[in-house]
Amino acid sequence: MALTLAFLGLGVMGYPMAGHLARAGHRVTVYNRTLATADRWAVEHKGHARRTPAEAARDADIVFACVGNDDHLRQVTLGPGGTFDVMKKGAIFVDHTTASAAIARELYAEAARRGLHFLDAPVSGGQAGAEKGVLTVMVGGDGAAFERARPAIDTYARFVKLLGSAGSGQLAKMVNQICIAGVVQGLAEGLHFAKAAGLDAAAVIETISKGAAGSWQMDNRAATMIDGKFNFGFAVDWMRKDLAIALDEARRNHARLPLTALVDQFYAEVQAMGGGRWDTSSLMARLEKS
Amino acid sequence: MALTLAFLGLGVMGYPMAGHLARAGHRVTVYNRTLATADRWAVEHKGHARRTPAEAARDADIVFACVGNDDHLRQVTLGPGGTFDVMKKGAIFVDHTTASAAIARELYAEAARRGLHFLDAPVSGGQAGAEKGVLTVMVGGDGAAFERARPAIDTYARFVKLLGSAGSGQLAKMVNQICIAGVVQGLAEGLHFAKAAGLDAAAVIETISKGAAGSWQMDNRAATMIDGKFNFGFAVDWMRKDLAIALDEARRNHARLPLTALVDQFYAEVQAMGGGRWDTSSLMARLEKS
Repeated sequence: MALTLAFLGLGVMGYPMAGHLARAGHRVTVYNRTLATADRWAVEHKGHARRTPAEAARDADIVFACVGNDDHLRQVTLGPGGTFDVMKKGAIFVDHTTASAAIARELYAEAARRGLHFLDAPVSGGQAGAEKGVLTVMVGGDGAAFERARPAIDTYARFVKLLGSAGSGQLAKMVNQICIAGVVQGLAEGLHFAKAAGLDAAAVIETISKGAAGSWQMDNRAATMIDGKFNFGFAVDWMRKDLAIALDEARRNHARLPLTALVDQFYAEVQAMGGGRWDTSSLMARLEKS
Repeated sequence: MALTLAFLGLGVMGYPMAGHLARAGHRVTVYNRTLATADRWAVEHKGHARRTPAEAARDADIVFACVGNDDHLRQVTLGPGGTFDVMKKGAIFVDHTTASAAIARELYAEAARRGLHFLDAPVSGGQAGAEKGVLTVMVGGDGAAFERARPAIDTYARFVKLLGSAGSGQLAKMVNQICIAGVVQGLAEGLHFAKAAGLDAAAVIETISKGAAGSWQMDNRAATMIDGKFNFGFAVDWMRKDLAIALDEARRNHARLPLTALVDQFYAEVQAMGGGRWDTSSLMARLEKS
């Protein structure tokens, strides 16, 4: 069934995600802070571009967002020209931003006060996953809203799961980033050790990657780490944003994250090296620095 | 071609590995420090048990060892009743112990002085891998000896690779253990965070395990970590032995292993909790301790 949809935030993730919605036959209206990008998207996908979030969202059954952080998210929902005061009764706001669990709970409550629904739905899979439409989507919120939004989400996702009440999607994304921090630093130390010991690091990785040391990061990042290539992928600046949210949440829940806190500091050193836009695998560059 | 083989060290790894050699039709003579285990193996596999490493190795084309550490390895090669002074000219000693690169190089040189060959060939895959005959074997030494030993090694291995000169197998195993240290601690923090935040940790793992946070450890250990089960698997005491070798080697090569050094200290805390025999995934127990 063709729906009337809005998509706010056409970055490297949002641009192709909105494209999948349009290609599935939905009527898609977009908003982006840099207006020219929205105009380009509208031409490419025969959709509509609007000048404010509110204008884009006014007639939508579902409003999607994929913006930068908590502040941007608050602007496009509750700020001037924001969506919450104009959305149709019963409409759903699906937030794909990686943001805090606190703002997810706040916006869920604000949406409910207005007769709207809110789902926090951060994604993993990166730009390539967004372009191919094979993202993983971690969702928090109500089951009924989830079931209504799911067919649209499925146009760009391979795995979508409702993990609990409002904020649960964001918390699951934090678990994802915490696990990655450990995997990447361990892999970086392993490769650094291999090079320092004079081993053929690629041959070692070929040998150990099928066993207990194996990981997605080893399969997908070891080769570029060995070659010292970091100008691609998921930026250190974004990873630090995500780890800050995780560490803040952990403080609230009295969870202990000694490795995560340490790796966050290592990423601060990568930033100091000028690597804020480098891929998260650039922890390797920090170890190799003389 | 049926070979005359010796196997020294019938622990949880060596016992089934020697069994695969016997089942492949080779004549296998075994030695074990606890003699009763050797006798039991000999009855079970219609092989022979001997009272010293030298007696077991005297007629062997290839002598295999899977013992505890550098000291045990030195005893069965150069000590009283050791193998090196009685082995046939041109015979090969294949060491499956996880030991230092230094002793691998020393024994390679001692073997060469006697007209013997030495391969350092530590394994990964654990007890289950040994029993099923699907180990990964990381080898250092000479190509000609490697090619001669390989068909026998293949009886219990799925992947065997010569990685360079003497010591290279041990160094590759260190890379494996370094990577594991990071993966397991990251996974433990992720699961601990999930529980502290009130999430359904198993549902979160189901969702994120296919993506960038995924790992062998997540696929094979997350469920038991969530349940707090650690009485199985690869013991913390053994992991600390391996990490000590890695950290020592890194000191020599001026490699930086901050995470590995930290996780090694975390394992010291698990030992202090009485968990020396627990699986390496018991880093989770340390985080959950109140």
